[in-house]
Amino acid sequence: ANKKILVLPGDGIGPEVMGQVRRVVDWFAKHRAVGFDLNEGLCGGAALDKHGTPLTDETMADAMDADAVLFGSVGGPKWDDLPFEKKPERGLLRLRKEMDLFANLRPAVVFDPLVGASSLKPEIVQGLDLLIIRELTGGVYFGEPRGIETLPDGTKKGFDTQVYTTPEIDRVADVAFDLARKRRNKVTSVEKANVMHTGVLWRQTVTALHAAKHKDVELGHMYADNCAMQLVRWPKQFDVIVTDNLFGDMLSDCAAMLTGSLGMLPSASLGATDPTTGRRRALYEPVHGSAPDIAGKGIANPLAELMSYSMMLRYSFDLGEDADLVDRAIERVLAEGKRTADIAEPGSSKVSTSQMGDAILDALDRL
Amino acid sequence: ANKKILVLPGDGIGPEVMGQVRRVVDWFAKHRAVGFDLNEGLCGGAALDKHGTPLTDETMADAMDADAVLFGSVGGPKWDDLPFEKKPERGLLRLRKEMDLFANLRPAVVFDPLVGASSLKPEIVQGLDLLIIRELTGGVYFGEPRGIETLPDGTKKGFDTQVYTTPEIDRVADVAFDLARKRRNKVTSVEKANVMHTGVLWRQTVTALHAAKHKDVELGHMYADNCAMQLVRWPKQFDVIVTDNLFGDMLSDCAAMLTGSLGMLPSASLGATDPTTGRRRALYEPVHGSAPDIAGKGIANPLAELMSYSMMLRYSFDLGEDADLVDRAIERVLAEGKRTADIAEPGSSKVSTSQMGDAILDALDRL
Ligand SMILES: CC(C)[C@H](C(=O)O)[C@@H](O)C(=O)O
Ligand SMILES: CC(C)[C@H](C(=O)O)[C@@H](O)C(=O)O
Repeated sequence: ANKKILVLPGDGIGPEVMGQVRRVVDWFAKHRAVGFDLNEGLCGGAALDKHGTPLTDETMADAMDADAVLFGSVGGPKWDDLPFEKKPERGLLRLRKEMDLFANLRPAVVFDPLVGASSLKPEIVQGLDLLIIRELTGGVYFGEPRGIETLPDGTKKGFDTQVYTTPEIDRVADVAFDLARKRRNKVTSVEKANVMHTGVLWRQTVTALHAAKHKDVELGHMYADNCAMQLVRWPKQFDVIVTDNLFGDMLSDCAAMLTGSLGMLPSASLGATDPTTGRRRALYEPVHGSAPDIAGKGIANPLAELMSYSMMLRYSFDLGEDADLVDRAIERVLAEGKRTADIAEPGSSKVSTSQMGDAILDALDRL
Repeated sequence: ANKKILVLPGDGIGPEVMGQVRRVVDWFAKHRAVGFDLNEGLCGGAALDKHGTPLTDETMADAMDADAVLFGSVGGPKWDDLPFEKKPERGLLRLRKEMDLFANLRPAVVFDPLVGASSLKPEIVQGLDLLIIRELTGGVYFGEPRGIETLPDGTKKGFDTQVYTTPEIDRVADVAFDLARKRRNKVTSVEKANVMHTGVLWRQTVTALHAAKHKDVELGHMYADNCAMQLVRWPKQFDVIVTDNLFGDMLSDCAAMLTGSLGMLPSASLGATDPTTGRRRALYEPVHGSAPDIAGKGIANPLAELMSYSMMLRYSFDLGEDADLVDRAIERVLAEGKRTADIAEPGSSKVSTSQMGDAILDALDRL
């Protein structure tokens, strides 16, 4: 039977970039007999508008049932003033939590033809290739108790709880060490052990795991504030960074922006491998958000979503050759000077979202 | 009676850079009749080594009694493995909390002769002048409950609590609006209202305060991850950023590094003004840390500590003219091409910590 993919385009530029990826999926079905059962659902503001909730139970069940989820982006000013539990983002957070996608892989890679698009000096970012592993199902994102209370004197108190257990830290650090081994063999673990107790436990746990199982990998520790500095100062010092949900949120966005190619960065969120079925729950999404300011204009860069599809082929379905085809088509199109507005440079030819899709299909035909 | 300053050089390069500032303080006593009663104390690792605690009750009392505290930096690998409550950083955190220094002013300014020292392109950072107001006595830094517990199955659980009340948010946001009015009149309030309840309360409270008292100032809201991105992409979009303790820790370090002049950035931490005495508790410290890697080598840049002294003259003692003298001496020395290693460039003349002190005294004599 065909593998099942749940497609959730979401809001803003999500549907636009996903539209181009669907054309590529069709190309693969036709030319490579890579057949998927695609099922499309609503998430975020789109689901709110239709069903009054950012993710229906049906869509959640579809996600649990799928072999992989391909995600767009959620959120936008239209839904900014909704109460907490209704916000579009809750749809994405529910998917992460219920699918138990604890390891979020966020590469920050500088593509050679795009070095000039970075706000950093070329010598600082050229050849940059770092990978942030962000814990995605714990920490302050989900910790209880949390809420807002009115105090006796009429003022209010808001509170959130950051919680981590040793097994939660172990499993995500394991992923980081394993991936580092296939790269430059270096892990930097990031927390605020000088201020937070979760940081102390994080550092102790990663240190113990390293000693027990991963001594062949180089391990360093860094405070989160220093890491934010070091990313700006000399990002090439890093190979794999492993950190918690909240620090990972900020540091991976910072790292992504260093590359100047936010529209080019995919991410994968992985769960544990089921020992009986051998199946690993997974969700793939671009690092960029819903970009409401350019939504609907047909100018968004579809390549991050397309690279998310390529990551899916590789990681979820072991279709490395097909993933390579996608990646090579992207390289060719970039080499030919085609650029969406976000990565345009003097001398390049500026294309729209759908023209970038055309170019990719054309390149696939020629490969 | 003379005003009382408590000097806490701390660890690492702290004592080295403070040594140069003390020479400047002496210069002012001699040439400008600006007399202070200077009292020096231990904090951080230095206090630990001598007294077994990162801040003695006596030193804490001295700080409460002082008109201002001039701080160096704390921490270092020597004390990294100490239990949480003994870490050098607890000394600084205790000062902040007991002196109730809720507003931490962290300017990120690019000095024209140092534009080239940034890892960012000159056009991105030239003329940059932003101010981060970081809440300094609340949030996850001090929230209860916090700790590490062993669970029945032998695994461990670490937890921290992020708490903010409306008065805590109001008072720091008030500082931000007031300071913006003296600058470019724009405040960006930063949180994660899409994920954290404290973020929701933060945004609501700042919005209400703005409507009630500060409508003449432009107000925007931004998520913390996006802010980390925007700082890298186009930092000049910001004037004043106001944010919580943890986000402020990371964002201000990121912003400081953008300037390439970390060794040049002072900060001020201010408490409330006492309505009877008119006195406002204050602590001044450089943005850079204790830099253990270069400590003891005599190459640290003393200018951030010196500018902290200048901020103290201006904000705590209303000695604007004297502060101007310090600032002009620094400008002159930079214009003459003198640079410590951290800001050295081809063509500049590299000086040691004490040679930079010499140059400043010489410039003061000539002004
Ligand atoms: C949309 C939002 C809830 C989300 C997060 O904070 O995790 C986003 O910023 C991300 O990084 O995927
Ligand atoms: C030393 C440390 C406790 C401190 C903090 O986290 O606040 C430092 O990073 C700072 O920003 O002043």
